[in-house]
Amino acid sequence: MTSDIMLSDSTLLPHDDAQYLCSLIRSIPGFPQENILFRDFMPVFADPRGLDLLIQGLVNALPVKPSEFDYIAGLEARGFLIGIALAQKLNKGFIAVRKAGKLPPPVVSQSYDLEYGSATMEIEKDLVPSHSRILIVDDLIATGGTAWAAMKLFESIDCTVSGFSFVMKLDGLDGLAKLENHPTSTMMVMPA
Amino acid sequence: MTSDIMLSDSTLLPHDDAQYLCSLIRSIPGFPQENILFRDFMPVFADPRGLDLLIQGLVNALPVKPSEFDYIAGLEARGFLIGIALAQKLNKGFIAVRKAGKLPPPVVSQSYDLEYGSATMEIEKDLVPSHSRILIVDDLIATGGTAWAAMKLFESIDCTVSGFSFVMKLDGLDGLAKLENHPTSTMMVMPA
Repeated sequence: MTSDIMLSDSTLLPHDDAQYLCSLIRSIPGFPQENILFRDFMPVFADPRGLDLLIQGLVNALPVKPSEFDYIAGLEARGFLIGIALAQKLNKGFIAVRKAGKLPPPVVSQSYDLEYGSATMEIEKDLVPSHSRILIVDDLIATGGTAWAAMKLFESIDCTVSGFSFVMKLDGLDGLAKLENHPTSTMMVMPA
Repeated sequence: MTSDIMLSDSTLLPHDDAQYLCSLIRSIPGFPQENILFRDFMPVFADPRGLDLLIQGLVNALPVKPSEFDYIAGLEARGFLIGIALAQKLNKGFIAVRKAGKLPPPVVSQSYDLEYGSATMEIEKDLVPSHSRILIVDDLIATGGTAWAAMKLFESIDCTVSGFSFVMKLDGLDGLAKLENHPTSTMMVMPA
């Protein structure tokens, strides 16, 4: 099976493994709305070899060394899957960044703009000590609004964002520009 | 720290490990609504030793042998965290059971009754081959509505539900009765 997706750096995984991993990602035109090409990672999670390669690739692509962060934060809900698998691999703690109203008090909240309207993300306030260093992970970065909100949340509880690790960047959107020059990595790209 | 939570079977983990794990679970009265005592597992995920013990305890508590299922299905969203960590540990594939509208087509849908109204869960239709054997996992079982819906979803695509693995059962609710005599396990209990 061929794919229009490839690794951002061909040294992240052996060639055959990279081909295999990218071939698992399913592309669905018109979901969740017209003119969107949805990238579905669920077939990767459903495949033990695929999951293992995804996490190994993310480890190899990390924007900072594992010794430079204490916790991995995953963005609801697909970032939960990637974040906790990466945390388990690296023996780090995992923090959930959730939509408003899902986490028990006390929480801190941060709103961000959507194309129409706004949304709010939350973290539990007392889950990590002050001055903890956080790596924020998600499957995709598009406009970067959620990742930006997560960054502001951790800063509001006196933590440091060490960097951002994404599986993929959506072309034509400048989400990374919102992240204030923090180290970032995107493991996969869609070449023009 | 003491906790009103203990393992359902004292042989699942060494005594000190069990004490440590149970002490991490935070109890919040009145969330998400009055008269509910919310059990928060996020401090377990935030602690690498806690996460490791949780998953080891779940493995030791499994209602069927790992050779008796092919995939682990996790219920949105806390079941994603437990499900994929367990899948990674056991080298199984992971399937997300999501709220309606989140997964790209083709999906199968199953509604279930809530106290007031109803909700719908979905899985991707072509993610697993027919006759696959599924272990369904979640953090808590309360009324069992979501777990029941997940069971019906997998049955509708000609898969077999091998069993259900929950971290905890909420007292006073007969959720397990909805699961049609499938093998089930609950790793933790709250003694009277």
